[in-house]
Amino acid sequence: MLNKLEHVGIAVKDLAVASQLYQSLLGVESYKQEEVASENVMTEFFKVGDTKIELLAASNEKSTILKFIEKKGEGIHHLAFEVDDIYVEMERLKKEGFILLNDEPKKGADNKLICFVHPRSSNGVLIELCQEIT
Amino acid sequence: MLNKLEHVGIAVKDLAVASQLYQSLLGVESYKQEEVASENVMTEFFKVGDTKIELLAASNEKSTILKFIEKKGEGIHHLAFEVDDIYVEMERLKKEGFILLNDEPKKGADNKLICFVHPRSSNGVLIELCQEIT
Repeated sequence: MLNKLEHVGIAVKDLAVASQLYQSLLGVESYKQEEVASENVMTEFFKVGDTKIELLAASNEKSTILKFIEKKGEGIHHLAFEVDDIYVEMERLKKEGFILLNDEPKKGADNKLICFVHPRSSNGVLIELCQEIT
Repeated sequence: MLNKLEHVGIAVKDLAVASQLYQSLLGVESYKQEEVASENVMTEFFKVGDTKIELLAASNEKSTILKFIEKKGEGIHHLAFEVDDIYVEMERLKKEGFILLNDEPKKGADNKLICFVHPRSSNGVLIELCQEIT
């Protein structure tokens, strides 16, 4: 099972502008920025209660965030759920009929192993599984 | 400030089908269904850690959920943040330049007073403020 909603990823055009806006909205400052070179994104994180808001901006023209924004506009990009054992959950979801976008977990932002579930198999919602790397 | 992410609202076409799917995905059963007649929606709730997933389906042809799905397809509809005092937060956000969709809080699902922030003022994300009615 999925333990908790670890973060919500939001695709934005301009990280500096969005960061200022989310600081105003949430009433807290972001606690880190991190580039994920393998995904061609720059991220910025806010903490709200037990969940994080992850702003995602393209760091170059190969980024899928650019394509997402072109197609859908800025907005919520994915929901990330924390799991204890990402291999076990990937196997479980495959058996349940979900389409995984990765055969193996990969390294994501924020010291996590991650795997995505295709939105086609989950009512249009891009789902991320994530497990803290210990 | 916003205390925590209380729930994520997901617009779906068929509540029964989506409910089965989210049960498989999350590994838990939904804990309630509730019709919100004033919003023309039927909702179904799942608990994941400290956050809820709220599936939203149109209960009649006047529902804004129908328009949302027509325009964007099924998917994440809004993020709802819990606040201690919705009047104070509405005032604060108005001063920060956010556009509120309600002048006064209204009664939402799950025994809450709610108010929406226009997605145009928050990077394409429809934000709900919610306060438990005590």
